[in-house]
Amino acid sequence: MRVVVPFAVESPKTRLSPVLAERERRSLARAMLADVLGAIVAAGHEPTVLATAPIDLEDDFDLALSDDVLAATTIAVDDRPLTEAVNARLPAEDADGDSVPEAVAVVMADLALTTPDALERLFAGDADVAIAPGRGGGTNALAVRHPDFRVDYHGASYLDHREIAADSGLAVEAVDSFRLATDIDEPNDLVEVLIHGTEHAPARLRSFGFELEEQDGRVTVARSDG
Amino acid sequence: MRVVVPFAVESPKTRLSPVLAERERRSLARAMLADVLGAIVAAGHEPTVLATAPIDLEDDFDLALSDDVLAATTIAVDDRPLTEAVNARLPAEDADGDSVPEAVAVVMADLALTTPDALERLFAGDADVAIAPGRGGGTNALAVRHPDFRVDYHGASYLDHREIAADSGLAVEAVDSFRLATDIDEPNDLVEVLIHGTEHAPARLRSFGFELEEQDGRVTVARSDG
Repeated sequence: MRVVVPFAVESPKTRLSPVLAERERRSLARAMLADVLGAIVAAGHEPTVLATAPIDLEDDFDLALSDDVLAATTIAVDDRPLTEAVNARLPAEDADGDSVPEAVAVVMADLALTTPDALERLFAGDADVAIAPGRGGGTNALAVRHPDFRVDYHGASYLDHREIAADSGLAVEAVDSFRLATDIDEPNDLVEVLIHGTEHAPARLRSFGFELEEQDGRVTVARSDG
Repeated sequence: MRVVVPFAVESPKTRLSPVLAERERRSLARAMLADVLGAIVAAGHEPTVLATAPIDLEDDFDLALSDDVLAATTIAVDDRPLTEAVNARLPAEDADGDSVPEAVAVVMADLALTTPDALERLFAGDADVAIAPGRGGGTNALAVRHPDFRVDYHGASYLDHREIAADSGLAVEAVDSFRLATDIDEPNDLVEVLIHGTEHAPARLRSFGFELEEQDGRVTVARSDG
């Protein structure tokens, strides 16, 4: 399965600006991308980073990607809006229409909790379209096996994608994964990275001084000025 | 597997008070409990509602539970704090220590997105303890197969439960489920009920006038005064 990871190179993660400076948001976004790529490669696939601008996996990262990840990963630059850029990479019918197009998965770059096991549940099905919903009705990851499906990431994309598939008579499977449902967008999400994150992203947050804190029996993150 | 569903009969769901009156919170809490019980019964198990006060599944609900659910469900009243009440129901060694105690699952009553499939992933493993974490480090559901494990729901219970298990040399499995991770506590959570809910809980919210609304490309809930 081809696996595409859209990545906004400039000004990423603006909704984290209440707690992270721009330089830190860029660094965390790259650490999360590194963890997503690591999970895809560990699951046996070769990711393509669909980047909004040129990026170098060695020079533009303040962390060391493993040799496995560097060898397996391709960068493709496409500065169109997300929906257009992704649709250009989904399975397409051959001109003669008689060969089965290769399936394509699309995995968001901010799924910092992603593991190979979670991805394999996305990759393993045989429905025309498999969707891992995110909180708030988003589409965090999908696997497309049929050339008639196209994405539309605007708004409640999970419901829209189900409708788009239904309109074409395609079978849809929902992938029920907390790890794939947890995109890291807002300050509240950082607690999930510290509890369930896998490698670079939690290390990066800890290097910024974040740690878990209990308040009134609930868990949150606190930042030391150390 | 015995399945225990703790349920706070009085003043439930206080964190929803910004958007729901007390009578509505009570009604929604019962609708969510009904959906959780329905999923447990559909998965082939007989739930015990561990209630903080006497409750009647027919008279105290403003909805009709199915005959299957009514026939399969037992009410047990225990007004002790959650941790104590649950621990009193977990597997215990026989006095002679030579029979294997029956496994016990504990499923929170506010998991309004629960489905039989999600529960079967919790019930199917063979680790000493299986835990479905909730957002913010909570423990939304667990299956306990070993008499040495005890719960402590205070604070970051997911991490505490892993530590309690490790201290006793028990094997722990995490169940990666968005449905089981989504407890309905806060106004923001209501959008998940409308998108992914199964039966009584989304119907109840709609009867209160809630519907999905898109704002700035994000999905939220709005309430009509109809």
